[in-house]
Amino acid sequence: MSSSDIFIGETIGTAILILLGGGVCAAVTLKASKARNAGWIAIAFGWGFAVMTAVYISTPLSGAHLNPAVTVALAIKNSDWSDVPYYLGGQLLGAMIGAVLVWLAYYGQFHAHLTDKEIVGGPGAQATSAKAVEAQEQGAGPVLGIFSTGPEIRNIAQNLATEIIGTLVLILAVLTQGLNNQGNGLGPLGGLITAFVVVAVGLSLGGPTGYAINPARDLGPRIVHALLPLPNKGGSDWSYAWIPVVGPLIGAAIAAGIYNAAF
Amino acid sequence: MSSSDIFIGETIGTAILILLGGGVCAAVTLKASKARNAGWIAIAFGWGFAVMTAVYISTPLSGAHLNPAVTVALAIKNSDWSDVPYYLGGQLLGAMIGAVLVWLAYYGQFHAHLTDKEIVGGPGAQATSAKAVEAQEQGAGPVLGIFSTGPEIRNIAQNLATEIIGTLVLILAVLTQGLNNQGNGLGPLGGLITAFVVVAVGLSLGGPTGYAINPARDLGPRIVHALLPLPNKGGSDWSYAWIPVVGPLIGAAIAAGIYNAAF
Amino acid sequence: MSSSDIFIGETIGTAILILLGGGVCAAVTLKASKARNAGWIAIAFGWGFAVMTAVYISTPLSGAHLNPAVTVALAIKNSDWSDVPYYLGGQLLGAMIGAVLVWLAYYGQFHAHLTDKEIVGGPGAQATSAKAVEAQEQGAGPVLGIFSTGPEIRNIAQNLATEIIGTLVLILAVLTQGLNNQGNGLGPLGGLITAFVVVAVGLSLGGPTGYAINPARDLGPRIVHALLPLPNKGGSDWSYAWIPVVGPLIGAAIAAGIYNAAF
Amino acid sequence: MSSSDIFIGETIGTAILILLGGGVCAAVTLKASKARNAGWIAIAFGWGFAVMTAVYISTPLSGAHLNPAVTVALAIKNSDWSDVPYYLGGQLLGAMIGAVLVWLAYYGQFHAHLTDKEIVGGPGAQATSAKAVEAQEQGAGPVLGIFSTGPEIRNIAQNLATEIIGTLVLILAVLTQGLNNQGNGLGPLGGLITAFVVVAVGLSLGGPTGYAINPARDLGPRIVHALLPLPNKGGSDWSYAWIPVVGPLIGAAIAAGIYNAAF
Repeated sequence: MSSSDIFIGETIGTAILILLGGGVCAAVTLKASKARNAGWIAIAFGWGFAVMTAVYISTPLSGAHLNPAVTVALAIKNSDWSDVPYYLGGQLLGAMIGAVLVWLAYYGQFHAHLTDKEIVGGPGAQATSAKAVEAQEQGAGPVLGIFSTGPEIRNIAQNLATEIIGTLVLILAVLTQGLNNQGNGLGPLGGLITAFVVVAVGLSLGGPTGYAINPARDLGPRIVHALLPLPNKGGSDWSYAWIPVVGPLIGAAIAAGIYNAAF
Repeated sequence: MSSSDIFIGETIGTAILILLGGGVCAAVTLKASKARNAGWIAIAFGWGFAVMTAVYISTPLSGAHLNPAVTVALAIKNSDWSDVPYYLGGQLLGAMIGAVLVWLAYYGQFHAHLTDKEIVGGPGAQATSAKAVEAQEQGAGPVLGIFSTGPEIRNIAQNLATEIIGTLVLILAVLTQGLNNQGNGLGPLGGLITAFVVVAVGLSLGGPTGYAINPARDLGPRIVHALLPLPNKGGSDWSYAWIPVVGPLIGAAIAAGIYNAAF
Repeated sequence: MSSSDIFIGETIGTAILILLGGGVCAAVTLKASKARNAGWIAIAFGWGFAVMTAVYISTPLSGAHLNPAVTVALAIKNSDWSDVPYYLGGQLLGAMIGAVLVWLAYYGQFHAHLTDKEIVGGPGAQATSAKAVEAQEQGAGPVLGIFSTGPEIRNIAQNLATEIIGTLVLILAVLTQGLNNQGNGLGPLGGLITAFVVVAVGLSLGGPTGYAINPARDLGPRIVHALLPLPNKGGSDWSYAWIPVVGPLIGAAIAAGIYNAAF
Repeated sequence: MSSSDIFIGETIGTAILILLGGGVCAAVTLKASKARNAGWIAIAFGWGFAVMTAVYISTPLSGAHLNPAVTVALAIKNSDWSDVPYYLGGQLLGAMIGAVLVWLAYYGQFHAHLTDKEIVGGPGAQATSAKAVEAQEQGAGPVLGIFSTGPEIRNIAQNLATEIIGTLVLILAVLTQGLNNQGNGLGPLGGLITAFVVVAVGLSLGGPTGYAINPARDLGPRIVHALLPLPNKGGSDWSYAWIPVVGPLIGAAIAAGIYNAAF
């Protein structure tokens, strides 16, 4: 694969991943969305099938990493870091494009949500805005969760641990698929299997932090949240931003180590 | 494939697509349905498996386009428009047949729903029919959503954008499946993968407009809604009808352009 | 396949189909079940995966019909009725065994449910037993729905139509799988695809009658309901029993006719 | 496969199975989890995809038994018990590691849940702690369900029967996959099919006892529950512990017998 195919494939693939993944968060969260309150099962399947769709679309161009944790794990496993910059660049750019597309697709819903006094508070709605106040204190705006992850209980050690453990499962599953297909990379079932692994991680390990398990998935949309002209959007919670970057990379390194030692 | 196989395959396939897709909307919406209020996750999986079922049934005859957006995208990609009329004709006819079958399968439920004063209003139920009044003002009857899509927030630019983006994802996923199967068209997994792509689009991008992402899926049933002798059915919202036709076609053209440029 | 393999395969397969299918109805319905009120999506996926499990288990022995509608459609398609009696016999016996196993697995739950005065009524609970009274008038006991199907609105023409349409979709999907696999019968994906077709029919067409779409699935458990020593079980609604037998057989015949004419 | 590959594969695989399976129970149960109250459908899919993930990861090393019931059934079928100790040892160790990882990933949630007076009771909350009192009387602490299974209605005969029947279905499905793949063991679809079989058993037969259907899945985490320093954790319900061990082994033996006799 040429570096430009890698960069374009990762950009397109990660854009679709975040468009669909951020999209399901918008769909379930925002006012005037038909899917509002569809629940955690919608979130988990939405992200899983987002991964599947992005994997099948980007496989022919870049092999579908779509996640710096995958790229780093494969670089460690293969001791080959030459293409890593093209992968990481495409992933971050794609994640940002995807987040902008979510905003376009849900433009009116974002506006309706963020100008609703019961949701974001306001002069005449002090009593009902407890949620908004609490969010602001944490440095997390009322729609930040559509862009980036955040913890239910703020605890650096646990939040890191949860992201490490979740990413470890994902990366071990990705690395072992080559063994199951008697060849390199994902086979024809690869996208489906990875989708359901992501659903599993979401259902099972998403409760404490919202399972970033992918540095680009969290950082790219957080940058977009900081830049977009959304009314009453609140802070982007930058104090938390390093955890969903560092945690998944640690998890990826551990997974690559286990893989090289045991498989 | 002969033109008659194409026409028959698309008619049967799109009829099944709309029977099952419209069916899940009826199941979740109508009074006296066992699935009433089953939620957005039921809608999204119902439409996804509707696509899967229709794809596997019509593949041997017509290659399973079932959607003018797919037909147009493939015509652009292959620069071959010769079979397009047979595809489009079968798709529109099939969509109308499917909508009639939904009406037959839910005949008693439609009647019970549309003669319920709390749902459609009436002389003695003015107060409780706020929903019906609002729907009528929009030109959308109380059961129109079982036939066609409609926006939560009426905004031509955003509604078009959402349909364009959703269709873009679907068509990119369809076009790239050939690359993943080292050949033409869908492989043995094609129906499954497409089903889950449709679930993804529904969960993630269905919130604002109800994700038509298919002109025949919206127009055919809307015509049937206008013709069927349903009591208190209200208007067919023709002012919105062009958006789920034009939006998906624009999305298909963009997807074909991206495909030809990048893949 | 020998007649004894067919009979044993269909008996085991249909027993597992009804054990899991009836099981999910028990799980969602009965008092003191962890899955109580899990909703229609649980019912639909439960029956779908019940079919998948039974298909893969019985394929090596009997080719996994598990449904007189499938057997009759294949006999019409192939003009070969020689094995039909072994298939039908195994299916009915298996369905009865499956229903008994549901009763064993949920023994305590059945007892707790049927001796709860709020559920089945009683001398001191006349007011709260409206549901039980209504059910008795229809000739349907409070747990009959765990064994057999019943309509939400009793209308012979519509109820027949819904069962015919639902079965038509199922059988067309089963018959066309051979074409997609360039050979006979179900390929390696057959059980998965059929599972999701059944989920589709359940989500989309199950609302009015509970989608028997299989004469053995309805008749076998209804016989067991009539025979089991359940307290306060109420009637077995025999007046409805012919519809989920005749409807699916008509649907199967129409599907075979369409298949022979168009494919 | 070497004995050390078997032991390591089963340890890693069963650790991932219990991490994800116990994880979804924690996610749905615990205070301050984003997935709280996501319902039985989340539990059933969570355990199913837990199995899938663990199967694909451990297949290259150990063939992915991950369950003493599978190991015993295959030993009976093949009349070969030589590797059984390595399988069972890895499974029990893995299950314990997995349970510890759940505790780490949900550390703060466990603490928040178990120090909430409304949940575990306390001097000032006698009235609201009825649930905690009842749980204590049964010897089951308020979070034991995240680790091990327990019955809704305590009845040795029924509880055993439910576990036997559920395991019988699982093991028959596992044993017959070899026949469907014209070879030994699971094919490329094996993990997916087994996942959905587990979802089926969960949705359909999980209501009475919580479907252990795997002695290691229940015993390993129960030991960890007894050892972990959780506040107010309550008892580990050891009087019930033998049923989810003995029931699945009986079910496995019956399944192997049916398989050897009929297939």
